[in-house]
Amino acid sequence: MEQSLFNDSFPVYAEDIEAGGDAAPSYSMLSEVARSLQITIVGGSIPERSGDRLYNTCCVFGKDGSLKGKHRKIHLFDIDIPGKITFKESNTLTAGQHPTIVDTDVGRIGIGICHDICFQELAMYAARGAHLICYPSAFEMTTGPLVWELLQRARAADNQLFVATCSPARDSGSGYIAWGHSMLVGPFGEIIATTEHEEAMIVEEIDYSQIELRRSNLPLEKQRRGDLYQLVDVQRTSSH
Amino acid sequence: MEQSLFNDSFPVYAEDIEAGGDAAPSYSMLSEVARSLQITIVGGSIPERSGDRLYNTCCVFGKDGSLKGKHRKIHLFDIDIPGKITFKESNTLTAGQHPTIVDTDVGRIGIGICHDICFQELAMYAARGAHLICYPSAFEMTTGPLVWELLQRARAADNQLFVATCSPARDSGSGYIAWGHSMLVGPFGEIIATTEHEEAMIVEEIDYSQIELRRSNLPLEKQRRGDLYQLVDVQRTSSH
Repeated sequence: MEQSLFNDSFPVYAEDIEAGGDAAPSYSMLSEVARSLQITIVGGSIPERSGDRLYNTCCVFGKDGSLKGKHRKIHLFDIDIPGKITFKESNTLTAGQHPTIVDTDVGRIGIGICHDICFQELAMYAARGAHLICYPSAFEMTTGPLVWELLQRARAADNQLFVATCSPARDSGSGYIAWGHSMLVGPFGEIIATTEHEEAMIVEEIDYSQIELRRSNLPLEKQRRGDLYQLVDVQRTSSH
Repeated sequence: MEQSLFNDSFPVYAEDIEAGGDAAPSYSMLSEVARSLQITIVGGSIPERSGDRLYNTCCVFGKDGSLKGKHRKIHLFDIDIPGKITFKESNTLTAGQHPTIVDTDVGRIGIGICHDICFQELAMYAARGAHLICYPSAFEMTTGPLVWELLQRARAADNQLFVATCSPARDSGSGYIAWGHSMLVGPFGEIIATTEHEEAMIVEEIDYSQIELRRSNLPLEKQRRGDLYQLVDVQRTSSH
C-alpha cells in the first residue's frame, strides 16, 4: 500500500522549483514566509520535478526569501521487512548527486533528508564546516522506535555538532504512518528538545559555542588517524 | 591525579608479549585459560612493552591458547575537561598502527580499545568483514553517562553487526573511576544484555543470522554512495 501511495503521489504533487511561482506552490509559499518574517527556513522536503526526473528535495531560504541552497536526497529509501514495511523509493525518484552545506544568517547548515541520516559519511562531510545538520524526515513505525533518536544522537556526538530533525506528526489513518518525534540534539549527543508523536512546535536557542567547547575538551578531529584512513570526496578526486 | 596514576602504572605493569612466559604474566594466564577450557578469549587490554615503547594492547587467543591477533590501541585518549577530567594517554603510550580483525572459531572479530570506539572509521573498516566488534574499555564517569551506550549502539546499527564491550566494574576508591556497564548490542542497535556498574558476568548467545537478516531488510552497504564518498585505507593506498 505504501508503495503505490508514494509512487502515485510523488508525481502528482511534484513542483518545478526552477520555474517557481504557480509551478511550485510550496516552494513559493516558503520563500514568501521567509521574506515576510525575515527568517531563515529549512523547508522540509517536497517532491521536485526537473525535466523528466523526480527528486526528494529540501530548500533553504534566506531572510530575503531567496533560495540559499537545495538538497536532493542522495540515499533513497529502499527497505523490505516482510509483513512490516516494504518500500522502494528508487522506483519513483532519482537520487541527488551532491552533499549540501548552506551558509545562512543562523550558521552553516548541512542538509540531509530522512534515509540520508543512516549514512555516517554524509554527516562526516558536513562536520568539516557545519554547525548544525538538519534532517527533514519521515521515519516510520518500524525503524523509528529502533534508531531514530539513536542516529540523531550518534551523528551529533560523533561529529561534535548540532543535529535538528523535523518529522510529520503521526497520523494513524495515513497510508504511511510517521513515527514523529522531531528533535534537537547537541554536540555531546544530548537531547535538547523533542516532541512526542503529535503536532507540536519547538522554540529553542542553539548555543554554537558548545561546539567549540566540546571540540577543545575532546579533540576528536585532531585525534583522527589520517595516516590510517581518510574519507574521500570522490567527485573532487575525479575532477583532478 | 589520574594522569600520574597512569603514567606511573603503565610502565610498572607492562608486559613483553613477544617474550611471553614470566615476562608477560597476564598474557600467559589468558593463553593458559583459553587452552585449558578450549575457548576463544578476547583478553581485555594490558600494557605492552615492545623495545622502548609502551602500547595499550588487546590479545585474542584461540582454543589452543595460541595468539590469534593483537590490537594496539590506535586512538589514544587525550581529554581535558577542567574540573572534571584531564588525561593524556599519549604522554605515556605509543599508538598502534593497524586496524585489527581476527578470525576465530566464534566468528570474525574486529577489535578496538576504549577511545577507539569514538571513531566511526574504525568500525567501518571492521564492518567490511567482521561479525562482531569487541571494545575492551574503561570509560569514566564524565563521558560514560553521556556516550558509552550511545556509541556502542551507533557502531552496531550503522554497521549492522554485533558490538560487545567489557569495562572494569566501578571502584569509587580508585584513582580512575570506571563507568562500568559492559554491554552486548545487536545489529538493529538493540541492547541484548548489559551489566550495571558492579561486578557481573554475562552469558549470552549471539545469533549471527541477525546480521544477514538486517542487511537484507535494509541494505545500507548497497545503498552507500561510493560514487560520492569512500573511506580509504591509506596504508593500502600508499603501498601501491
